[in-house]
Amino acid sequence: MSWTIAVAGVTGAVGQEFLTLLHERNFPATNYKFLASSRSAGAKITFRDTEYTVEELRADSFSDVDIALFSAGGSISKEFAPIAAQSGAVVVDNSSAFRMEDEVPLVIPEINAEMIHRHKGIIANPNCSTIIGIVPVWPLHKDNPVRRMVVSTYQAVSGAGMRAMDELIRQTRDMLEGKEIEPEIFEVPCAFNCFSHNSRIESNGYNAEEMKMVNETHKIFDDYDMAITCTCIRVPVLRAHCISINLEFENSMEAAHAIDLLHMAAGVTIIDDWESNHFPTPLDASGQNDIFVGRIRQDASLADNHGLNMWIVGDQLRKGAALNAIQIAEHLLK
Amino acid sequence: MSWTIAVAGVTGAVGQEFLTLLHERNFPATNYKFLASSRSAGAKITFRDTEYTVEELRADSFSDVDIALFSAGGSISKEFAPIAAQSGAVVVDNSSAFRMEDEVPLVIPEINAEMIHRHKGIIANPNCSTIIGIVPVWPLHKDNPVRRMVVSTYQAVSGAGMRAMDELIRQTRDMLEGKEIEPEIFEVPCAFNCFSHNSRIESNGYNAEEMKMVNETHKIFDDYDMAITCTCIRVPVLRAHCISINLEFENSMEAAHAIDLLHMAAGVTIIDDWESNHFPTPLDASGQNDIFVGRIRQDASLADNHGLNMWIVGDQLRKGAALNAIQIAEHLLK
Repeated sequence: MSWTIAVAGVTGAVGQEFLTLLHERNFPATNYKFLASSRSAGAKITFRDTEYTVEELRADSFSDVDIALFSAGGSISKEFAPIAAQSGAVVVDNSSAFRMEDEVPLVIPEINAEMIHRHKGIIANPNCSTIIGIVPVWPLHKDNPVRRMVVSTYQAVSGAGMRAMDELIRQTRDMLEGKEIEPEIFEVPCAFNCFSHNSRIESNGYNAEEMKMVNETHKIFDDYDMAITCTCIRVPVLRAHCISINLEFENSMEAAHAIDLLHMAAGVTIIDDWESNHFPTPLDASGQNDIFVGRIRQDASLADNHGLNMWIVGDQLRKGAALNAIQIAEHLLK
Repeated sequence: MSWTIAVAGVTGAVGQEFLTLLHERNFPATNYKFLASSRSAGAKITFRDTEYTVEELRADSFSDVDIALFSAGGSISKEFAPIAAQSGAVVVDNSSAFRMEDEVPLVIPEINAEMIHRHKGIIANPNCSTIIGIVPVWPLHKDNPVRRMVVSTYQAVSGAGMRAMDELIRQTRDMLEGKEIEPEIFEVPCAFNCFSHNSRIESNGYNAEEMKMVNETHKIFDDYDMAITCTCIRVPVLRAHCISINLEFENSMEAAHAIDLLHMAAGVTIIDDWESNHFPTPLDASGQNDIFVGRIRQDASLADNHGLNMWIVGDQLRKGAALNAIQIAEHLLK
């Protein structure tokens, strides 16, 4: 078989990670099309020793494409993903445009891979903090239903794209040199600072990022009764998210049993060395594929071992975006 | 009246903040003694246009002292605070050495100022994240008992002292220049990273910092039934802590009512602009005396408005340490 893969938004931070991962994983495609806006069209990309020219993303880009990996922003996805699907491609879309639509599977392969083949041309990749947060919750939830989750995130700037990563570097340098800084991507300084996630606050007081965690988890777990509350915060970190999570279970959940379940879980690595105080950090997780979990301990504030706390870290550009989409594509080609 | 104030540990990060605040607040003392280890003795300090010589902290340093502000580490406090108290001084101790002792008041003036005059020579200043976290919880708890608190912290490096602040600056500069970094104060890199608090993990899996939040809150609120669980994390921020807190109340607590209570609370400023996405940040709070609160919203995961989320930010060196101690001293002089 010969497969043609298109990458829409190839010049972005997630687009670049697609290239790295397609190469690293020896993705079984024979032809590649690298698409971007007219601004980037014509740029040269070397991939697996071959030079490609970035083409402008247009309605006629997808006639010969089998799988289209989209990461060019929600409005581009809204316009072009249905066209690509109509042209016969299967779209794996990293934007939020289609995630909550009933006929669109929202997939984390470790959790609900069986949904992949129910697609009608578009499969949605969940939000980065949702993926990173719930990959290690799933094996516990399957064993003993999670009744309530209280989540606080420590999110890298990469979720806001390559220019946000540049802004963190530039602002940090400017602050160290005592220069005035001028926030551009974010409304507040990101260097040496933490701030509430830069998405719109909805009428209930939650921002859009927090509601993604709530709504997407319900859909992916297919459990709409799970009570979830979430606070999403950005921290001055480049590309890996951290999540502090408190879980309340239907039945007793011993920490030792949770650790056993996490040891067997796909895509999860435990780093939980109490003796030497060694736990996951975003620098360690950067460039890694797994989700790292530590600080796994009984929540003493809930009776009868019904609660657990965990500290979860994962690369936002990999499992939080590009890797999850490529894993979905790999399932499509099976 | 003529009062003599000693500052033990004057060359440290909190010690320096003591000087700034004693000046700013026109502290009503007539004489000052600035004490430090033999290493720093002999150094010159200019305070209110007078040059002082730093004296070595010794057993005979306190004979003429009315109030001694200690911030020189737990072992120095353990050795010298009882001596200072026996010499007739009242010690306000910023270390953890005496906080949990029955006869030592543990005081946040906005909460339990009435305990100050029950001292037997030593008054303990609570841990920084405890102070910053619970100042805004108290006015809510008085109105409607908090039954459970789930806390995640975003702690500045200043809590580990001036050398930790220098380490963050130096590591950040080195990482930007592509140099190898060598952690000294912390076991892991602090620049562009987040990590579990660098205090010892106890047998229950909580670190010492987390247990301070639990045990100190119980003592300060004089409510040992409150269920508290906490995850303490350091972030690459210089001197203000952030705290994401989830509160469960005995009765319904409308967010609008909580906001009214916080508006009237001493030492609390609300920054909670949903429209422009403007909430407290550590850079805004640095050098400020108040605790800043935002993201005040109903926790949709608890029924009947029994839950609230808040985002709390405060200067670790000010209200988290030096300011709280000086406020206690001001009460002593009343």
